[in-house]
Amino acid sequence: MLRFLTAGESHGPALTAILEGMPAGLKIKINRINQEMRRRQQGYGRGERMQIERDKVEILSGLKNSLTLGSPIGILIKNKDFKIERLPSVISPRPGHADLAGLLKYGFVDIRCVLERASARETAARVAIGAICKIFLEQFRIRITSRVLEIGGRKNVTQIKKIIDQARINKDTVGGIFEVKAKGVVAGLGSYTQSDRRLDGNLTQTIASIPGIKAVELGLGFGYADKLGSGVHDAVYYSKARGFFRKTNNSGGIEGGISNGEDIVLRACMKPISTLLAPLDSVNIKTKKKAKASIERSDICVVEAAGVVSEAAVAVELARAFLDKFGSDSLRDIKASYQRYLKRIS
Amino acid sequence: MLRFLTAGESHGPALTAILEGMPAGLKIKINRINQEMRRRQQGYGRGERMQIERDKVEILSGLKNSLTLGSPIGILIKNKDFKIERLPSVISPRPGHADLAGLLKYGFVDIRCVLERASARETAARVAIGAICKIFLEQFRIRITSRVLEIGGRKNVTQIKKIIDQARINKDTVGGIFEVKAKGVVAGLGSYTQSDRRLDGNLTQTIASIPGIKAVELGLGFGYADKLGSGVHDAVYYSKARGFFRKTNNSGGIEGGISNGEDIVLRACMKPISTLLAPLDSVNIKTKKKAKASIERSDICVVEAAGVVSEAAVAVELARAFLDKFGSDSLRDIKASYQRYLKRIS
Amino acid sequence: MLRFLTAGESHGPALTAILEGMPAGLKIKINRINQEMRRRQQGYGRGERMQIERDKVEILSGLKNSLTLGSPIGILIKNKDFKIERLPSVISPRPGHADLAGLLKYGFVDIRCVLERASARETAARVAIGAICKIFLEQFRIRITSRVLEIGGRKNVTQIKKIIDQARINKDTVGGIFEVKAKGVVAGLGSYTQSDRRLDGNLTQTIASIPGIKAVELGLGFGYADKLGSGVHDAVYYSKARGFFRKTNNSGGIEGGISNGEDIVLRACMKPISTLLAPLDSVNIKTKKKAKASIERSDICVVEAAGVVSEAAVAVELARAFLDKFGSDSLRDIKASYQRYLKRIS
Amino acid sequence: MLRFLTAGESHGPALTAILEGMPAGLKIKINRINQEMRRRQQGYGRGERMQIERDKVEILSGLKNSLTLGSPIGILIKNKDFKIERLPSVISPRPGHADLAGLLKYGFVDIRCVLERASARETAARVAIGAICKIFLEQFRIRITSRVLEIGGRKNVTQIKKIIDQARINKDTVGGIFEVKAKGVVAGLGSYTQSDRRLDGNLTQTIASIPGIKAVELGLGFGYADKLGSGVHDAVYYSKARGFFRKTNNSGGIEGGISNGEDIVLRACMKPISTLLAPLDSVNIKTKKKAKASIERSDICVVEAAGVVSEAAVAVELARAFLDKFGSDSLRDIKASYQRYLKRIS
Repeated sequence: MLRFLTAGESHGPALTAILEGMPAGLKIKINRINQEMRRRQQGYGRGERMQIERDKVEILSGLKNSLTLGSPIGILIKNKDFKIERLPSVISPRPGHADLAGLLKYGFVDIRCVLERASARETAARVAIGAICKIFLEQFRIRITSRVLEIGGRKNVTQIKKIIDQARINKDTVGGIFEVKAKGVVAGLGSYTQSDRRLDGNLTQTIASIPGIKAVELGLGFGYADKLGSGVHDAVYYSKARGFFRKTNNSGGIEGGISNGEDIVLRACMKPISTLLAPLDSVNIKTKKKAKASIERSDICVVEAAGVVSEAAVAVELARAFLDKFGSDSLRDIKASYQRYLKRIS
Repeated sequence: MLRFLTAGESHGPALTAILEGMPAGLKIKINRINQEMRRRQQGYGRGERMQIERDKVEILSGLKNSLTLGSPIGILIKNKDFKIERLPSVISPRPGHADLAGLLKYGFVDIRCVLERASARETAARVAIGAICKIFLEQFRIRITSRVLEIGGRKNVTQIKKIIDQARINKDTVGGIFEVKAKGVVAGLGSYTQSDRRLDGNLTQTIASIPGIKAVELGLGFGYADKLGSGVHDAVYYSKARGFFRKTNNSGGIEGGISNGEDIVLRACMKPISTLLAPLDSVNIKTKKKAKASIERSDICVVEAAGVVSEAAVAVELARAFLDKFGSDSLRDIKASYQRYLKRIS
Repeated sequence: MLRFLTAGESHGPALTAILEGMPAGLKIKINRINQEMRRRQQGYGRGERMQIERDKVEILSGLKNSLTLGSPIGILIKNKDFKIERLPSVISPRPGHADLAGLLKYGFVDIRCVLERASARETAARVAIGAICKIFLEQFRIRITSRVLEIGGRKNVTQIKKIIDQARINKDTVGGIFEVKAKGVVAGLGSYTQSDRRLDGNLTQTIASIPGIKAVELGLGFGYADKLGSGVHDAVYYSKARGFFRKTNNSGGIEGGISNGEDIVLRACMKPISTLLAPLDSVNIKTKKKAKASIERSDICVVEAAGVVSEAAVAVELARAFLDKFGSDSLRDIKASYQRYLKRIS
Repeated sequence: MLRFLTAGESHGPALTAILEGMPAGLKIKINRINQEMRRRQQGYGRGERMQIERDKVEILSGLKNSLTLGSPIGILIKNKDFKIERLPSVISPRPGHADLAGLLKYGFVDIRCVLERASARETAARVAIGAICKIFLEQFRIRITSRVLEIGGRKNVTQIKKIIDQARINKDTVGGIFEVKAKGVVAGLGSYTQSDRRLDGNLTQTIASIPGIKAVELGLGFGYADKLGSGVHDAVYYSKARGFFRKTNNSGGIEGGISNGEDIVLRACMKPISTLLAPLDSVNIKTKKKAKASIERSDICVVEAAGVVSEAAVAVELARAFLDKFGSDSLRDIKASYQRYLKRIS
C-alpha cells in the first residue's frame, strides 16, 4: 500500500519526505522531479522568497542507478533560508491562518511554533512525492495537468495580471479557482465498497488538505444543483474501436466512487493568502490587547502553484488506487496485470 | 482511534456496522439512533421504498445496561426487503451510477452484483454510527445540524415542492445543495502537521464519499475566489467573557486544518438521482447493442436525506479528532481532560 | 487492502465481524466455515459451554449465490447463551485475566464489563473470518493446519488426557504448545522494506494477540540460540524440476521478513486458562479486602482450539500479504497475476 | 496517533526517518539520542564496520530550541560508507537472508538490490526514533532496558566471549537470547477490545520485525507450557501504599492485552548472523549452478545490539499506546491527564 509522511518547518534546515510502497524497476530522473518543484514556485504574484528557494530535491534512498528498489524513497529538500532559531517571536495571530487555533491546541507561547509547520512550504515535499507518482502513472499513460480558471474573479490573463498588480500595490492578496485533470485513467480505480475507498472522497480530501483550499468539486460539481437528472448523466455508448465510452463527462470521470475511464476533472477554490502586508485586526496573545496581525514575508497570489500541488496530490491518490488494484512490488509485473486487465475489459 | 466498517447490500438480509474506539460509560438510547434513521428516510421526493424500510437499529454488542463498554459497537439493520437472490439480472448500466465501472472492475456479468452494494442503502449504516458519535459529541455540547439550501435551482419550499412534483410526473430527478453545521466545536481539533490529519480535508472526504455528492465547500467556499484577502479573513478579537472570538466566520470554523472555535459550516451539492424511470441511453452489456438503462425503484429527490447522512459523517470525523486530542477509554476521563483544556485556553 | 473488525460480548446477543477487501468471484460454502467453527469448539478438556455453543455462522452480506461480490462480508454468530444483562456483578479480578487492568483502564465498577469482551469468545469471530481467508488461499493451494505438540509438559495422547483429567479433578487448568503450518505459500509474500510489512512480525503479532498466548516462534525459534551460523541456515539449491529449494527449513519458511517458498512453521505457547474452579487469591474491588477470585464457567484446556484460532489468524495475514502482492478486486485477475508470477520466478 | 516510516539503504547516502505524532513541549537532547545510537553499535563480536559508522543523528524538523513542536520529527543519519552505486553485483544468495526471496519478489537481477535495504542497517533509524520515544516515556518514569541472557548457549561473560572468539576464528557466527524490560508502565495501556490493539501482540510484532529475531515471549513465555494454572497466575493483592499489586510477575506485565502495572518483560531469540565468512552452499542466480553464498562484511554476534534495537521498538509501541490513552498535542496536557488517571486508579 502506497503511503507517505512529510516533515519540515518553513525555516528549518530541510524538508524531508518518505514515500513507501513504490514498486521496483521504475526509472526516476531527478530532473523530472525538479521540474515539478520549479513549476510549484512559479506563477504571477509570487513573493521574493521564490527566488531564494529554487528547490532542489535529493533522493537519499530507494534508488540504485536511478531505478527504484521497492524500498522507501527518502527525499531531502534543503531550505536555503534556514534560520528558525533566530527568527523573532510572533505574538499576534494572522486571521485565516492556523496561528491562533494552533497556539491553543499545542499550548505554545510563540505563534512561530505553529506557523513554521503550518506554512505552505510543506507542499514542496508533497510535490516531490507527487512527481514520483506522476512518473509511475506515466508508465500507464496517465497524465495529470492543471490550469488556472480565474483569479480574483477575473478570467483572462491581462485582467488577472492587473488584479494581482493592484493587490500588490494595496498590500492585499487574491485567490481563485483552478482545475486539475487526469487523462488516461483506466476504468476501475477506487471502490464503492467502503466509504474510505471511494476515489471521489479521497481525491477531494487530498486537495482539500492543501493549505488555503476551501472548496473542491468533481465534474459539474455545484453545477449539478439546478439540472434535471434526464439532462445531466453521461449516457453510455459502445463501439468496437473505443469500447464503452461517453459523449459527455459531467461526472468528471468518477461514478459511484470508481474511475469510469473518462478524464478525471476536479476544480478547487483557493482563498486569498492570509498573510497581508497591510495586516488585519488581531490580538496580542500576551497582553490580550488589540493589535495588528503579524507580518510574514509572503506571496500575493498562489493559485497557479496550488494547481501544481493539487496535481501532485492527485497523482499520489491515483497511484495508490492503481497499486491497490494491480498489485505491487515489480513494475514489470504490474504492467503485465494492467495489460491483461485492459484486454479483459475491452 | 475511532474507526468503523460497514457492510450490507441493498436487498441482502441486513446491513451491519462495527464502530470501534468509542469510550466506555456513554449512555446510548436506541430511540435516539432510530430517530436519526427516520430523519434519513424523510424528505419530500422520496420513493415508496421508504415506506417499506422504516429502519430499526439493533445493537448487538458494546453495550451493557445502555452504557458503552469501550468495546466495539456492533449494529444490525435488517432489510425489510430481502430478496437479493431472487432479483433479476441487470444488463444495461445506468449512467451516473457505479454500474458500468463496477462491472468492469470486478469482472461481473450481472450489474446487480455492483448496484446492491453501490446503492445509497449503505448510508443507513453510516447514519447509525454517526448517531452514536452525535450522542458522544453532545456530551461536550457539540451539535450537528443540516438544512436544504436549494433543490433543482429553487430556494423556497413552495417552489421546491413544485419542481419535485414536476420531476415525478416527468419521470425525472432533481438534486440540490445542503448545508451542514457543527456548533460548539472547541478550538484545536485536527492538525496541520500532516496532510491526513487536517480537519478540513477529512470532513470534505467524508461528505464527498456519500453517494451522489459532487462538490463540497467550507465556509465561503468558492465564494472566496473573487474576494480580496483584506476583506475576507476573520479578524481576531478577545474579551474576558468570550475569550478569543470572531465577528465573521468566512473560514467556516477551520483555519490551517484546525477547528478555531467558531461554527463549522460545510455545504455540498448532490447531483440528481441517477436512476430514472424514463431511462437514459445505455448499452446492453451482453450484446453490446444500444439499450435503455435499467430501471430500479428509486426516489425523485434525496437532498434532505443527504444532509442527514452528512451530519452523521461529520459526527464521526469530529468524534475521531476529539478522541485523538483528549484521549480514549473512559468518558469520565475524557470529560476531565476536556474541562482542563477549556480552562487552559480560556 | 484486506482488513477486518470483530465485535461482540461473551453473553451478548451475538458476535459480528466485517471482512473488507476479499475479491469478487470466490465461492463460499457456509459449511466450510461452520466446519472450522466446530473445530474451534473441540479438543479434550473443554467445558460444558462448548455443548451450548455449537456456533453457526450467518453471512449477512458480501455474497450473492454463494459468490463473493468484492463488498464487505458481514458475519453474524448468535450467542446461544444471551444473558449479559442478567448476569451478576463480578467483584474479584481473576489473576491472569484482563479483569483488573481492564477495570482500571475503563473506570468500571463491575468486572463483568471487562470480561465479557476480553473473553476468548471473540475468537469465534476470528475463526469465521479466517475460514473465508482459508477458502481464498486454497484457490492457490495454500493449506494451513495446526497440531498440539505438548500439553502440561506431556507429549503423547494418553499422558495428555491423563493430565487434563487430573486437572479437572483438581479444579485446575493446563496449557501447552502447538504448531501452525502453512504449506504451499509462494515465495515473495511480506517485505523487509518497512518494519510493519514483515511477514514474520505480522504473523507473530496475529498469534500473540489471541487470548492466552504468551510466546511465539518461527522455525527453529529459540532453538537458534545455541547453534552456530554455519550449521543452521538453510542452504540454497536449484533443480529444473523444483526451481530454487532447500533441504532444511530451520527458518520456518520466512527469511528477511519474506516467505521463501518453504512451509511456514510457527509454534506458540498458550498459558493455562486463568479461570480456576479453585480460585486464586484476589481482592474485592469494593472493599479492597482479600477475596477469592471470581469463578466463571470455563474450560480445563484449550490448546487444540488455540491452534485452530491461530490457523485462522495466519490465514488472514497470508491473504492480506497475498492480495497486497497480486492485486485485488477479481479472483480471476488475481489468479492470472499469480500464474504469471509463478512462471517468472520458476 | 504515533506512527513512523524509515528509509535508507546500507550503503546509500543516508538513512532517514519521520516520527509523526509526538506531542509538543518535549525537550530533546541530541546527545541522548546519540548515546542510544552508540549503544546499538557496541557489543562483543561486532565487525569493523562499527568503527566506520559511529552514527550521529541530525534532527531536521519538529524541534525549535530543542523542544518538540508537535510536528513530524525528521531524522537524518548519514552513512559514512556511501558507495551503493560502485559496489559489485551479488549473485549467490546467502541462506538465512532475504536475498533469494527478495530477488524473486521484486524481479531483480542483482541481489544487491535486496540486501541494501534488507540489511540490519535499517535498525539505526528505528533506534533514533525509539530514543525520542524513550525520552517521552521517561517523563512518566517509564524506563526500558535490555540485557543479554545467553549467547551460543553460554550464559556467563567469559564463556560468551570465548564462544564469540571461537566463532570469529572459524569464520562462523552465533546468536542468543536477550531480555527487554519496561519498568514503571502504568496499568491500562493497550486493549482487549480488538486484536490489533492488544499490547502483547503489538510488542511481539515490533520485536519480531527486527532482522534476525525468530522467537519472542512474554513473562514466563514457553515456560507456561508445563505449569498448572493454580501455580502460575499472579495473585492480586492490595495495600494502601501500593494500591493493587502482585508478588509474582509470570505474566510479564500484560494480562488480557493490557499492561497491568508490573514490569513488562519480554525475551527474544536472535539467530546467528546469516552472512558467513566461510560461506554456505548456494546457487549462482544467473547460471543456476552450485556456488558459495556471497560474502558481505559483517559481524560475528549482535545479540546485545538486538536488545538495544528492541528497547527502541518497545519504546515506540508503549509511547503509541500511552498517547492513545492520554491524548496528544501538548506534553503538559498529557501530564495532567496522566496524573489525574493515577489518582483515579489508586
